[in-house]
Amino acid sequence: MSKPLIAVTMGDPAGVGPEICLQLLANEEVCAIATPVIFGDARLLARCARQTGLPAPKRILSEIEWAEKCGQIDEPAVLDLFGFDAADFEPGKVSAKTGAAGFRYVEKSIEAALAKQVAAVATAPLNKEALHAAGITYPGHTEMFAEKMAAKRSCMTFFSPEMVCSLVTVHIGYQDVVPALTKERILDVIELTAESVQRVKGKRPRIAVCGLNPHAGEHGLFGRGEEERFVVPAIEAAKAKGITIEGPLPPDTAFIPARRRAVDAYVCLYHDQALIPLKALAFDTAVNTTLGLPVPRTSVDHGTACDIAWQGKANGSSLVEAVKLAAKMAS
Amino acid sequence: MSKPLIAVTMGDPAGVGPEICLQLLANEEVCAIATPVIFGDARLLARCARQTGLPAPKRILSEIEWAEKCGQIDEPAVLDLFGFDAADFEPGKVSAKTGAAGFRYVEKSIEAALAKQVAAVATAPLNKEALHAAGITYPGHTEMFAEKMAAKRSCMTFFSPEMVCSLVTVHIGYQDVVPALTKERILDVIELTAESVQRVKGKRPRIAVCGLNPHAGEHGLFGRGEEERFVVPAIEAAKAKGITIEGPLPPDTAFIPARRRAVDAYVCLYHDQALIPLKALAFDTAVNTTLGLPVPRTSVDHGTACDIAWQGKANGSSLVEAVKLAAKMAS
Repeated sequence: MSKPLIAVTMGDPAGVGPEICLQLLANEEVCAIATPVIFGDARLLARCARQTGLPAPKRILSEIEWAEKCGQIDEPAVLDLFGFDAADFEPGKVSAKTGAAGFRYVEKSIEAALAKQVAAVATAPLNKEALHAAGITYPGHTEMFAEKMAAKRSCMTFFSPEMVCSLVTVHIGYQDVVPALTKERILDVIELTAESVQRVKGKRPRIAVCGLNPHAGEHGLFGRGEEERFVVPAIEAAKAKGITIEGPLPPDTAFIPARRRAVDAYVCLYHDQALIPLKALAFDTAVNTTLGLPVPRTSVDHGTACDIAWQGKANGSSLVEAVKLAAKMAS
Repeated sequence: MSKPLIAVTMGDPAGVGPEICLQLLANEEVCAIATPVIFGDARLLARCARQTGLPAPKRILSEIEWAEKCGQIDEPAVLDLFGFDAADFEPGKVSAKTGAAGFRYVEKSIEAALAKQVAAVATAPLNKEALHAAGITYPGHTEMFAEKMAAKRSCMTFFSPEMVCSLVTVHIGYQDVVPALTKERILDVIELTAESVQRVKGKRPRIAVCGLNPHAGEHGLFGRGEEERFVVPAIEAAKAKGITIEGPLPPDTAFIPARRRAVDAYVCLYHDQALIPLKALAFDTAVNTTLGLPVPRTSVDHGTACDIAWQGKANGSSLVEAVKLAAKMAS
């Protein structure tokens, strides 16, 4: 079997994306299990290599070469997408131009994934301000992929050695969470999580679903019965489909050490229920993924970090983990 | 200066309270800085000592002796409150009778505190089922103390080596949080926290307040402006009073390691925002306190654990920490 080809988007050119892509191309551990192809700009990467002292990419592909030979690529490469006028480009300074370029790399990676040219996509960070300046209104990668890949159901899931967790709702306000909860949506997230964690961990996973209220409502003492209305029916339906699952767990004790050892993946009802424990426990090691897409998609767990960009200071380990997980999910 | 006298309630007799109180009386580190007096039942403690192999209490005080001599007590003791018919008592089995007894020890400790007989109170765990069976409807110690001590303002705060955090709202449902948030309530909690942490840590504390929505609303992108309406005005008012404070912080990154090192105490808007990270990071080491009372009140961070009660298996370290913190807060 050949190694899976992974599209790796370069991210916003002004951020740390270019240098963590250069680090990735030189990472032997990654290149032993996958063939990464950077979807980005070859001239910018060469400039970034000179500026940071990182090794320059060896293999550059034009879009024409890519279209002809992508089935035969077996060494780390850069797909040169040009389209970026570097005249007034300043490292660390995002603009409408850098936002549009970063978005284009993502669009091209989605096209390649839909055309089955790549087995998975891993993404370097975009910058929200730059996207807005470029008139692009997606809240983030997750929504771009979900929409452009026309996924019927999808969810955001974080993988880290410490814990795995999926989000039922993501970037919505505190008071908009309850209206977005349905038995069907929670069941979708449970199923997507169980299937994906089975593939990554190679065993039938034990899933835990958190409640919404303190102590998961404590039998009606707190809250308005949200656990009974939405969470319990979803858990029962998942059990009927043969999924190993428990809950609704009291959220505050769901993430204590003993419980974490007994749970393979959490399903969390809102953004901070998942991301507070994840970032407290596994900061910088979590890989963000979108489940439910035609191909696996993973992402780094950090932003563009423009304050340290192009200075050779960026830590590329999150992108390395993202590509390793993408390879595992694609296999 | 003599050591502070600390009332320690025995908790529900059927739970682990009696044995952790016995452990406490024998703890030299505690007795070097404070004089603990167990508010409980001497016969039950003697029976528990025989059953678990822990040392029996040496000094037993009747209520009459206590009333006469409490100003001169300088050795660990038990204040024998009787009132408990042990005829059909079974360790590990809570009942209306054990619930009522546990509640009585708390009431007596509050009387002693209000009469300035003790410098602080530390509480062993009560059992909610047993309290309900006895017709007592307080959700917990916090509410008993706040009501019986007629505190104008009070809050629940957790101290652990890993982090300190205060709760603006506690045992209410997810959807009841926003209606309970006001600038005044948040400011009260900030002030109580700043004052208490100053006393315990011996330095001007750096306080951080969390936002409500993902990314603290991200400048109006998520949520309904709760940060701007309630949190920001409270922070501004606290600053005007000379408190060192920052926020509203994005909740998901508020508890990452680097941030924790820069923050002396967090103010959290709802139960799980505080207790998810606290229990994930500092399970079993946190001390629960009620601030704003006429005397400091601290509590263990665990329940009655009836499944292991009276078997010599209970870990008394949380009560030890609770009494040490009470002594510090009383000084």
